[in-house]
Amino acid sequence: MNMERLLKQIEFIKQIDQLKYIARKTKLFNSDRHENDAEHSWHLAMMAMVLLEHANEEVDLLKVIKMVLIHDIVEIDAGDTFLYDTSKDHVNTEEELVAANRIFGLLPEDQAEEFIAIWREFEAAETKEAKFAKTLDRFEPVLQNLSNQGGTWAEYDVELSRIFQKIGVIENGSDFIWEYTKEEVQQCAEKGIIRNK
Amino acid sequence: MNMERLLKQIEFIKQIDQLKYIARKTKLFNSDRHENDAEHSWHLAMMAMVLLEHANEEVDLLKVIKMVLIHDIVEIDAGDTFLYDTSKDHVNTEEELVAANRIFGLLPEDQAEEFIAIWREFEAAETKEAKFAKTLDRFEPVLQNLSNQGGTWAEYDVELSRIFQKIGVIENGSDFIWEYTKEEVQQCAEKGIIRNK
Ligand SMILES: [Ca+2]
Repeated sequence: MNMERLLKQIEFIKQIDQLKYIARKTKLFNSDRHENDAEHSWHLAMMAMVLLEHANEEVDLLKVIKMVLIHDIVEIDAGDTFLYDTSKDHVNTEEELVAANRIFGLLPEDQAEEFIAIWREFEAAETKEAKFAKTLDRFEPVLQNLSNQGGTWAEYDVELSRIFQKIGVIENGSDFIWEYTKEEVQQCAEKGIIRNK
Repeated sequence: MNMERLLKQIEFIKQIDQLKYIARKTKLFNSDRHENDAEHSWHLAMMAMVLLEHANEEVDLLKVIKMVLIHDIVEIDAGDTFLYDTSKDHVNTEEELVAANRIFGLLPEDQAEEFIAIWREFEAAETKEAKFAKTLDRFEPVLQNLSNQGGTWAEYDVELSRIFQKIGVIENGSDFIWEYTKEEVQQCAEKGIIRNK
């Protein structure tokens, strides 16, 4: 009984190792090296601990951490979706749902259900925990791009208004972090690092 | 006031990006690619969520996750200590303490104190949360080595009795995971993958 559960859990633990091979478009701080999804997820969990006080509402830290730890696991099957990709909008794709069912489905049923529910809550971005988790998920690449002379914004020639449109969700989880972000990104445009029309 | 705190927190968030460059001796599952400390820490946090039910005592999951997320951050300055390195024993070195004070010291004082306390608690391995965190920290490379034809055990020609001596701490956090581990590692020795005397 317990052993059956443990063996399923170990299968899942092995499977998610693959997240370490999923490369993001964004690069590490002051670096040319692409970040992978596992590193990114670790960094968001650290940011959740550190930036908690700036959340708009009082949030359940454990829930936020669970969300950011698992939020990209579906990309093992579905691949990374680049935020500024114009060809597909990042909405809970069918492909991601299939991936969630397959990968979390390796776990004992109760755990599979819990993980899928957490992932869906994150994607829906409606609860206060999901909003704050989304804030972190957007804020990390902002900091990375700022440290890399515009990073992916410069590389893919993304215009200021489009950047604001995409990272504006930061405000839903933290007005304070959004104020900081807006100011920094604006300055980046004023320096000509980001295209402003 | 808030801005002063945020700027310190951002400095910390940037600094810990360096954990992604610290290579461990252990390799990813079924792979020749070395794992880095950030990926390792993410994987342990996932294992904490998944394997919680096997802990010897009821543990505070959030505390365990915090421990495993930050446990290797001192290695940014002090470097990775290989478990089977015979030249230095992995005990809370002076170097690591200096690193903890420098890196966590980038945070606002209350947070620096909290993080240093969590790291010390992990290192001391006395509380039930620290014991379970140590179990996870030992169990991940066991699973990786088992998937890699003995991995670092074979590569560094580590004898079975020495392996058991080093990974025996798994039992302190989970009798059940230890039973599983002992059996698997024993089989590995019987197949001649690990040296048995
Ligand atoms: Ca270590």
